[in-house]
Amino acid sequence: MAQVENNIFGIGEKNTAFGQYFTGLTYRHPLVKKSTTIKAGVSNITFTPAARTNWHIHNNGYQILLVTSGNGWYQETEKPAQKLQAGDHIVIHEGVKHWHGATENSWFSHISITSGTSEWLEPVSDEDYENLNH
Amino acid sequence: MAQVENNIFGIGEKNTAFGQYFTGLTYRHPLVKKSTTIKAGVSNITFTPAARTNWHIHNNGYQILLVTSGNGWYQETEKPAQKLQAGDHIVIHEGVKHWHGATENSWFSHISITSGTSEWLEPVSDEDYENLNH
Repeated sequence: MAQVENNIFGIGEKNTAFGQYFTGLTYRHPLVKKSTTIKAGVSNITFTPAARTNWHIHNNGYQILLVTSGNGWYQETEKPAQKLQAGDHIVIHEGVKHWHGATENSWFSHISITSGTSEWLEPVSDEDYENLNH
Repeated sequence: MAQVENNIFGIGEKNTAFGQYFTGLTYRHPLVKKSTTIKAGVSNITFTPAARTNWHIHNNGYQILLVTSGNGWYQETEKPAQKLQAGDHIVIHEGVKHWHGATENSWFSHISITSGTSEWLEPVSDEDYENLNH
């Protein structure tokens, strides 16, 4: 739990808003709501070990991830997964199919800055996920 | 220096790009460059004690600050200054004249997410700044 306690932007509550598009237990702390004037939403997302998003695409916009604690993965389709740690950042361009989440043994938190709409796709299979971690 | 060492997104280099619009020594670590597809730039800005921006306005856009370490101030014109610490965030709407910076005795770092263009105005006077800290 040390990684959660060190999570400066707060873990918030169980991620019921998007939980159906994730595997495993995640938490979400919404910080800034997207509006007509503030055109990107900002949240802090915390993944318990092995939790991850489904594959998804950002349409008519983009997403930036700023890793605040723990260890995780980011993968774009047809590319190798990248391991992430606190201080790393990722820029996700419009139309790129990808997923992100915790490693098998670590909690993981990132700020997400999201513009546009998210198109949610299939889960990352246990087989594909486990192959990353071994 | 402990606050700088704990600064997870890195202090980067001396803020020569915007130094003329700041009072005191600041550092800037650009993380994401604004472009035609990624419509907000992201940087980590670190202020040495008592360093601060000039008064300024964001036009045709907005700015979000995410405080990552230290203690600082945020003030909008005609309003009292707010004290900031790690984990706090600020949303700055288009057209709002404001400044941000460190307290007198603390280093201060925030992520800035900036869309649109910045209109730089006069420095925060030493008198106004010192009145906040005493």
